Amino acid sequence: MSVTTSSGASSLGLVETRTVTLFDERDPLVLASGATLAPVEVAYETYGTLNAARTNAVYVCHALTGDANAAGHHGNASRPGWWDTMIGPGKAIDTDRLFVISSNLLGGCNGTTGPSSIDPRTGAPYGLRFPAITMQDLVTVHRALCRHLGVERLRCVIGGSLGGMQALQWVLDAPDELDSAVLACSTSRLTAQNIAFSEVARQSILRDPEFHGGDYATVGRRPRNGLAVARMVGHITYLSEELMEERFGRRLQHGGAQPHGGFDIDFAIESYLHYQGDGFAERFDANTYLYYTRVLDLFDPFPDENAAVPALARTSTRFLVISFSSDWRFGTPHSQRITRVLERNGVPVTSHEVLSPFGHDSFLLDVPEYLRRVQEFVRDVEVRA
Amino acid sequence: MSVTTSSGASSLGLVETRTVTLFDERDPLVLASGATLAPVEVAYETYGTLNAARTNAVYVCHALTGDANAAGHHGNASRPGWWDTMIGPGKAIDTDRLFVISSNLLGGCNGTTGPSSIDPRTGAPYGLRFPAITMQDLVTVHRALCRHLGVERLRCVIGGSLGGMQALQWVLDAPDELDSAVLACSTSRLTAQNIAFSEVARQSILRDPEFHGGDYATVGRRPRNGLAVARMVGHITYLSEELMEERFGRRLQHGGAQPHGGFDIDFAIESYLHYQGDGFAERFDANTYLYYTRVLDLFDPFPDENAAVPALARTSTRFLVISFSSDWRFGTPHSQRITRVLERNGVPVTSHEVLSPFGHDSFLLDVPEYLRRVQEFVRDVEVRA
Repeated sequence: MSVTTSSGASSLGLVETRTVTLFDERDPLVLASGATLAPVEVAYETYGTLNAARTNAVYVCHALTGDANAAGHHGNASRPGWWDTMIGPGKAIDTDRLFVISSNLLGGCNGTTGPSSIDPRTGAPYGLRFPAITMQDLVTVHRALCRHLGVERLRCVIGGSLGGMQALQWVLDAPDELDSAVLACSTSRLTAQNIAFSEVARQSILRDPEFHGGDYATVGRRPRNGLAVARMVGHITYLSEELMEERFGRRLQHGGAQPHGGFDIDFAIESYLHYQGDGFAERFDANTYLYYTRVLDLFDPFPDENAAVPALARTSTRFLVISFSSDWRFGTPHSQRITRVLERNGVPVTSHEVLSPFGHDSFLLDVPEYLRRVQEFVRDVEVRA
Repeated sequence: MSVTTSSGASSLGLVETRTVTLFDERDPLVLASGATLAPVEVAYETYGTLNAARTNAVYVCHALTGDANAAGHHGNASRPGWWDTMIGPGKAIDTDRLFVISSNLLGGCNGTTGPSSIDPRTGAPYGLRFPAITMQDLVTVHRALCRHLGVERLRCVIGGSLGGMQALQWVLDAPDELDSAVLACSTSRLTAQNIAFSEVARQSILRDPEFHGGDYATVGRRPRNGLAVARMVGHITYLSEELMEERFGRRLQHGGAQPHGGFDIDFAIESYLHYQGDGFAERFDANTYLYYTRVLDLFDPFPDENAAVPALARTSTRFLVISFSSDWRFGTPHSQRITRVLERNGVPVTSHEVLSPFGHDSFLLDVPEYLRRVQEFVRDVEVRA
């Protein structure tokens, strides 16, 4: 067993991120809370070609720490986008036939307006003055980008984890807009344990003295330590215990026969966590991490899973719901709950638990059964259309 | 289902902690590393009466955050010691027949010499100048306390989690000294995931600016935030996901119908974590937390579980090894590994997985089957003796 993060160098080649202003002062984004936000810039990429009938578009929604660069690369072919295993010529989301749209989420820190953007009212970064956002708001902005690109209906919306939650929300908000939705290792509601992990990450950030009430950028600081520890906690939940044991076990980082003791790095797993945490703290925005984790916590579109859901009752969207056997973050019971609600509301849904040792991270990896099932599903949707 | 932390007020009544200097400059503690430490004071309590033959002593080893007050109370009968469910008149460890010894571990912060003690060489608290310690060192000090109390042989040594690891180490160090050992939800080696949780906790402390390289006490500070976040992470691992869901689920702390959003406490599970984390940060020493977690990480008495263990081959100690079905920290596979090694070396061992929804914390709680199995085992040991 080995972790394969990509099936070789990207076959899509060089891609670029574009930025568009989708909402401005004259036409602000109206959030689910009723608050407004302007301007809203969105960073996005597209792969493949929109056909003349405009029927072949697929929207890719990223997870907690993704960005618009889902596939292809920005100049270094050995560092392709985060879902290059899924998207490209001949891949499950086949850019030879499909037109793929991928954007950085609202509230993000990779080109889309978020807490690190300049608040036009103050001339300084929003920080925690950025408005509260929800899953609906993320989808509202995705839909605006589709209109901007001349896409009125999607062949598919697809995402893993938080990405899948956006796909589900999209069907609820616009049940007539999607031929299909693919949700990988996603959930319709976080458990208490899931929320607990969110909160520990947030507390680690909020209690870092360098957080400065969210205005760290204004004072030229970064809450690196709080963000690094938050990310370390996250990584524990992304890997299965089985995989962590196989990859790291009790192996010593320094290669000696005995641990040194003391509090420097002794074990390989410690080195892995430091590397992941510290690297992340340099590239990601702490406020975005706070806002996104709260979006996760608050998502609960079916508080009563037995209640009828009008949007689902009238949608023609077909669903593929995939979970991974070793995922202990949003494992199979999370997907099963989504499937039950869809089925009770008469929505056509195909569900699979894919055997994979990689835990929650499986959705990003080259897991052949998973990629094949997505490919077959999307092809079937195209044939039916 | 409800969590019962005690079967009513303590029946043992008022108890007190005593302190004894077990090692001094003329007779220092020689650590497993070869380093020496003096003075070593130990805080301990005893319950029941040592019989004339001195054959009825039981040693209780505490876990990561315990102290010498295992049973009875210090003036408030509604706040009994941490294992009052287990120890007392008529209880599983029956103080009507047994003489129970409970001490704060070496490296501790509740009366036994540890990093917060004054280093006689400097006149200031040791901080990180406290020597590296191992499981063997904890047991060496326990054994010295036994000699001080006139106890040469124990009817039983018992502990949960880190406490059980001490019991196992004791048999390895002194295979002729114990009639029996009881290990609850313990382990013979931490997994990579276990070490990862240790390391996240340590990093949270070490990266707190108030840690001051371990010399926070000298400058009149405390790394409260780092320690609080470390404890929050710990609590996630102590409870089963099932119990957390039943006790907290997505219930809102403020009792409203809708979450407030934002980053103050919204969910009851968040309030629980804050309460546990912040309370702990006031009462526990950060350096002790670092040292104890490293003792956990480094414990690995059987790197090769198939290798013969001479001390086990010649011991007459009988073992009871208990795990809990919902424990995902040191769950049943951890206990099974210990049992396999004991059996391969011809040691009499009884193993049980007890059904319990409470996760790792089960060993502290009123789980009737568990308490009954300990009681029966200890009685059987007494009968055989």
